[in-house]
Amino acid sequence: MTGMKRIFLLVVAASVLFPPAAHAAGGNSSYTLLFYLVAILLAAKVMGHLVALLGQPAVLGELLAGILLGNFHLLGINGFEGIVSDPFVNMLAELGILVLLFGVGLESTIRDILRVGLSSLFVAVLGVALPFVLGWGVGAWLIPEASSLAHAFLGATLCATSIGITARVLQDIGKSRDKEARIILGAAVIDDVLGLIILASISGAIVAAGAGEGAFRIGPVALVALKASGFLAVSLFLGTLITPNIFSTAAKLKGPGVLMGISLAFCFLLAHLAGIAGLAPIVGAFAAGLILEPVHFQRFGERNIHYLEEGLRPLTEFLAPVFFVQMGARVDVALLAAPEALWLALALTVAAILGKQACSLGVVEKGVNRWAVGLGMIPRGEVGLIFASIGSALVLKGERIISGTTYTAVVIMVIVTTLVTPPVLKWSLTSRRKRESDG
Amino acid sequence: MTGMKRIFLLVVAASVLFPPAAHAAGGNSSYTLLFYLVAILLAAKVMGHLVALLGQPAVLGELLAGILLGNFHLLGINGFEGIVSDPFVNMLAELGILVLLFGVGLESTIRDILRVGLSSLFVAVLGVALPFVLGWGVGAWLIPEASSLAHAFLGATLCATSIGITARVLQDIGKSRDKEARIILGAAVIDDVLGLIILASISGAIVAAGAGEGAFRIGPVALVALKASGFLAVSLFLGTLITPNIFSTAAKLKGPGVLMGISLAFCFLLAHLAGIAGLAPIVGAFAAGLILEPVHFQRFGERNIHYLEEGLRPLTEFLAPVFFVQMGARVDVALLAAPEALWLALALTVAAILGKQACSLGVVEKGVNRWAVGLGMIPRGEVGLIFASIGSALVLKGERIISGTTYTAVVIMVIVTTLVTPPVLKWSLTSRRKRESDG
Repeated sequence: MTGMKRIFLLVVAASVLFPPAAHAAGGNSSYTLLFYLVAILLAAKVMGHLVALLGQPAVLGELLAGILLGNFHLLGINGFEGIVSDPFVNMLAELGILVLLFGVGLESTIRDILRVGLSSLFVAVLGVALPFVLGWGVGAWLIPEASSLAHAFLGATLCATSIGITARVLQDIGKSRDKEARIILGAAVIDDVLGLIILASISGAIVAAGAGEGAFRIGPVALVALKASGFLAVSLFLGTLITPNIFSTAAKLKGPGVLMGISLAFCFLLAHLAGIAGLAPIVGAFAAGLILEPVHFQRFGERNIHYLEEGLRPLTEFLAPVFFVQMGARVDVALLAAPEALWLALALTVAAILGKQACSLGVVEKGVNRWAVGLGMIPRGEVGLIFASIGSALVLKGERIISGTTYTAVVIMVIVTTLVTPPVLKWSLTSRRKRESDG
Repeated sequence: MTGMKRIFLLVVAASVLFPPAAHAAGGNSSYTLLFYLVAILLAAKVMGHLVALLGQPAVLGELLAGILLGNFHLLGINGFEGIVSDPFVNMLAELGILVLLFGVGLESTIRDILRVGLSSLFVAVLGVALPFVLGWGVGAWLIPEASSLAHAFLGATLCATSIGITARVLQDIGKSRDKEARIILGAAVIDDVLGLIILASISGAIVAAGAGEGAFRIGPVALVALKASGFLAVSLFLGTLITPNIFSTAAKLKGPGVLMGISLAFCFLLAHLAGIAGLAPIVGAFAAGLILEPVHFQRFGERNIHYLEEGLRPLTEFLAPVFFVQMGARVDVALLAAPEALWLALALTVAAILGKQACSLGVVEKGVNRWAVGLGMIPRGEVGLIFASIGSALVLKGERIISGTTYTAVVIMVIVTTLVTPPVLKWSLTSRRKRESDG
């Protein structure tokens, strides 16, 4: 423990001796980024160590490290606020989650996912339907003065599943190739498409209501649905046809790092295209990982897919903590002081957690840990926040659809669902396995 | 070759079908970055393949890939201009060169460098003195109408050594642990300090001349020299004392990626401090690599320094091409059409190349390929450009110290010294070695 204190003191000393503000005046923002990266990496590893002592997945430590760094200013320690808002930290965080999902996708093939496809579909539909109804109900019950469109929007924020946390937990505990993992990951992809359709529908309804029209037009919603499903269909099916060709060609290229370079280019290309189709770029990165199969790498000889998985690990070790620490740093603990938001937050959180447990009913396979599937779908993460912030930007009859209090409650719900998942998911997957091997 | 064409067509097709402009309107700059990364990685690997067929180091291919992408607009193909100016590409390029120099530093220890320290010092001093005199002379000869301070500034742009190219070539051909490599790297670090002092002196003289003072004050120049040498002394000597402690503590931390996280944090911390001291951040990254020695990693058990070197490789494979492609993309081939700048550029280039050959006289060790040391010091890279752009911002008696034509000539000199180094350095190091083993 004294060692840890020493590292902690080092972080604090470094921040006092060389606060980013001291050279921000120099105009070179890359120095500030380096300072943030030092703080993020040290805090992530120290907190990861602490939660590992408690038997928890490292990702929980990284979230806690972020909460610490992001709220240091409350203790009078300044200089870390930029971790939340710095565009470069942001960008590295986004690359980190892309590389993480690409690596998780590599561990499965499209066939693996299709084999549990029916379960994934049911899980996704149930995981959208019940939270939507519960969220609407909570809204109607606790904020009856708001319009019914606001209640619907609240329901929508509970639909999304943020797959980053669950993917990291599965990787931390070495279970990312299990059937449960495939069902959850497949469901999360479908969820992203369903979420987009719901968001487009409700936004369309609000715009239509604002314009005094009775009903909203189906056109734009259909277009959103078409673009998103089109991307998935084209990337997965055309990708499977063309990719072997591209990679057997790439295998002939001479020079260092060809495999890594071409594979990352493929990952970023699909992430880019997913973004254009309106989906989250991580869906594209995951699809890229699914499409790549060991057979595509035969011609690389020694430099095969295992080298790629091995090579992605240090990239993930560097970049993924940036994502999770930043996610933690977005938590504003001052929010917890607002009592009027706390009740709504409590009700929303219960609805969010219970609602996703319906997912376990969607699993058709036998021998699958249904609880784990429901628990893995819990985190709302940044997707819920994106929905809420879109809602708070929409105005109906001069009033914001999502008020400040409601937005705060959604943020607290996102925090709790994010923090609660790593320990319970690990518990569910490891203790069940233990019971099975005992029995 | 047909495979290469296929990949090239893919790049062009992707850029036509999904130009970054089409979604830049969406406001999400990270999608644009993904597009640039795809283009950079694919172009780097394809051109790296082409130069490998000609027996050249991959880094030359990456520079050529950059020249291609950066000048595509001349062929009417748009969408790649941002590779030069995009702040995110910029930032990844800077991280890339840090990680590269950190890795190169890891391959040597401080003791290795001190053993050739006298040679490095002589090489650095000679490599600054002769180019400075030659550059001044070229200025006095070809632009006599400019002030003598402008001639001095021209001399200063020829002093700097850009170590990135040489470090990559040494790594590409597997010679980064050789004595020649250590002499060049040590000299480049000293060069950076000397360059800073020269830049501060001349800028000080210009400011003093502008204020009508006869002589410039020594104070600010001494401060710059003190800060830079202070950083090196403190980081290398104190670093050597404290680091074993920090790393034996870090080895006790549980959780994934501790070694990579703490090591990168150490690299970024020293790069950050070097930046504060006024040195190039890569000097700090290189120092961090030098300080870390295998003995610090004993307690990591399996996760030893070789794992760190192995783990840095994919990071470098991803990020270093971003640096070299961007460096190439900065080349504006339209500049070559300006005849009045071409003569000055030619004279400067000859002075730059010949001037650094004096370096070979500074080597005191026997059995060292002196030619290779001189050739390895040739590239001026971004350091020369930074000097020139500082000069073009300085005004004396209403006139810019560095005129547009002079700046263009400096840019061409930087291009030529950068492109000429990889082939000649490889030739010198591999053919001499062959002759030795033959004899």
